[in-house]
Amino acid sequence: MNQPSRPATLKEVAEAAGVSPSTVSLVVNKKKDARISPETRRRVRDAIRDLGYRPNALAQTLVSGSSRFIGLVADAIATTPFAGQIIHGAQDEAWKHGYALLIANTEGNGDLENDAITMMLEHKVRGILYSTWFHRLSEVPDALREADFVLVNCFATEDGVRAVVPDEAQGGREATELLVRAGHRRIAFINATIPAPAKDGRLAGYRAALDDAGLAFDPGLVLEAYPDQEGGYGAVDALLSLGVTAVYCYNDRMAAGLYDGLRERGVSVPGDLSVVGFDNQEVIAAHVRPPLSTVALPHYELGAAGIRMLLGLDSPSDGASPIVKVPCPAVERESVGPHTRAAEFSPPPASP
Amino acid sequence: MNQPSRPATLKEVAEAAGVSPSTVSLVVNKKKDARISPETRRRVRDAIRDLGYRPNALAQTLVSGSSRFIGLVADAIATTPFAGQIIHGAQDEAWKHGYALLIANTEGNGDLENDAITMMLEHKVRGILYSTWFHRLSEVPDALREADFVLVNCFATEDGVRAVVPDEAQGGREATELLVRAGHRRIAFINATIPAPAKDGRLAGYRAALDDAGLAFDPGLVLEAYPDQEGGYGAVDALLSLGVTAVYCYNDRMAAGLYDGLRERGVSVPGDLSVVGFDNQEVIAAHVRPPLSTVALPHYELGAAGIRMLLGLDSPSDGASPIVKVPCPAVERESVGPHTRAAEFSPPPASP
Repeated sequence: MNQPSRPATLKEVAEAAGVSPSTVSLVVNKKKDARISPETRRRVRDAIRDLGYRPNALAQTLVSGSSRFIGLVADAIATTPFAGQIIHGAQDEAWKHGYALLIANTEGNGDLENDAITMMLEHKVRGILYSTWFHRLSEVPDALREADFVLVNCFATEDGVRAVVPDEAQGGREATELLVRAGHRRIAFINATIPAPAKDGRLAGYRAALDDAGLAFDPGLVLEAYPDQEGGYGAVDALLSLGVTAVYCYNDRMAAGLYDGLRERGVSVPGDLSVVGFDNQEVIAAHVRPPLSTVALPHYELGAAGIRMLLGLDSPSDGASPIVKVPCPAVERESVGPHTRAAEFSPPPASP
Repeated sequence: MNQPSRPATLKEVAEAAGVSPSTVSLVVNKKKDARISPETRRRVRDAIRDLGYRPNALAQTLVSGSSRFIGLVADAIATTPFAGQIIHGAQDEAWKHGYALLIANTEGNGDLENDAITMMLEHKVRGILYSTWFHRLSEVPDALREADFVLVNCFATEDGVRAVVPDEAQGGREATELLVRAGHRRIAFINATIPAPAKDGRLAGYRAALDDAGLAFDPGLVLEAYPDQEGGYGAVDALLSLGVTAVYCYNDRMAAGLYDGLRERGVSVPGDLSVVGFDNQEVIAAHVRPPLSTVALPHYELGAAGIRMLLGLDSPSDGASPIVKVPCPAVERESVGPHTRAAEFSPPPASP
């Protein structure tokens, strides 16, 4: 059952080519200074091809001193849809430069994390990307310091620790601008209750976009809710009491829950209220009714940029911060409509 | 910036322990027949600990002839939330037995797949799990035949090819039984339009559950729709014309779209209609309103069972099919209510 066919050995290749095993080894390991005639090299390569011989990558690594692996430690491959895109971006970029990814999923378990990094070091990885599923401040694990490393979707406060993170403030500005450009002037923001760089950055972006549009920031238009569907659903009454024509939600899950509450109250999107999310979350943003305009978290690009930084292809310029921010692009769908005069001047419903 | 501290060398360990480098090597590689006194072994181990020396796993692999890697080839880590759980289960089980996973994400690209398998073979993996994001019939790639392998979430028609797949029919039966047990007698099934083992299996399970309950199968109660939110939303009118009190949907995304359409028509779940999904999809099933009762695709267990089969820990018994089916457990939430007489006897609305 699925037994592997026995691979050809170096000795068999040598016999087929009529040379010594050490000559085959020299050809395989591309020793430039070895005196082997072009004709002999050709015979060896033909025999390798005919017999399907696979040179041992491990032995080649020992000869060259480092492997063609890059490690990626992720804290939540299984439980969020976000890690997948970081992996995808990192892998595409790594393959482009001749490296394979060695991926470990730690689910936040410190022992597993330490074991995974140790395993990667033992396999002489070129370096390690250390990634988290949500953008946050992180400690640098001790074991990681033995490798060349880059933090992805997280960052450290220590000097010189390289990191690639999403530009939350620019994303928040883009999200708000989708509403400003449609003519909205009274725009609510439902922020998350949980402290995080995203909470601060997305609020800063909202304020910057209002500023640019000459609109005064009104703290009364900023609500807070837990960043999932239940949080958005629970914020509906408070939101409707504000008399706004548009709302920007901290994330798409919150917007999806808000949709449910609005539908129950007969408030149509975008006819009565324009809604913008954040994340461009797979399986949700494009599939709610109406499809949600949002801002994408650039997970694929974070993974790719992390690899480029690790390999020294994208280096922060001298004196610049080693924390690189990747833009969050707007994704326009159907949840933003034009501002209507009627909505602007209708009095807010009385509070209970 | 994040430069690795230079690791200790074998030579430095030998000097610190007052022994020859080859003695250190013998201790590290656990050569049983080497004549080294317990006292010398202790000195070497102390020096290894004090200097933080990391034995080279690659060199150890060459000595032992095979690596502590198992490969996992996945076709869609990035674009679906399902692959993550397969990885999680495979990794947990692999670590338990002293193996690390080498993961490659192919996004269905044949060249990438071939390169990934070749890389794994060159690194002398113990074997390879070949997985697909949705349950389907698969070709066995030629390169895979050079390794010991198990298919995960897919299967081949060839004799003897080992595979681990979800038990779709048992899952469909569980889903339908959630409704039968609540007293429903007229139960619709919205199947997928796309041919797949899930389509056939989930229908077979529905029929088996009706049979067990002494209910006649009525093909007029089986609809078909595209298996996403838009498909479920579009099926609402056809469903309501059937005069059923309950519906089992091919997947959770379809159920989520159905919810939107029902809400717009003032049909309450589960008051007017009980709804069951399939998949227990992350970020959706537990977070729609009301939370959706469903059947879980056992992705974690598929990954773990694949590893056990590869390592020969779970072997199909002689003569048994090498395709092992993993059960899909029911997950009860709030979308199933008791059958009401009124609903059963209300005439179906006239078709337009």
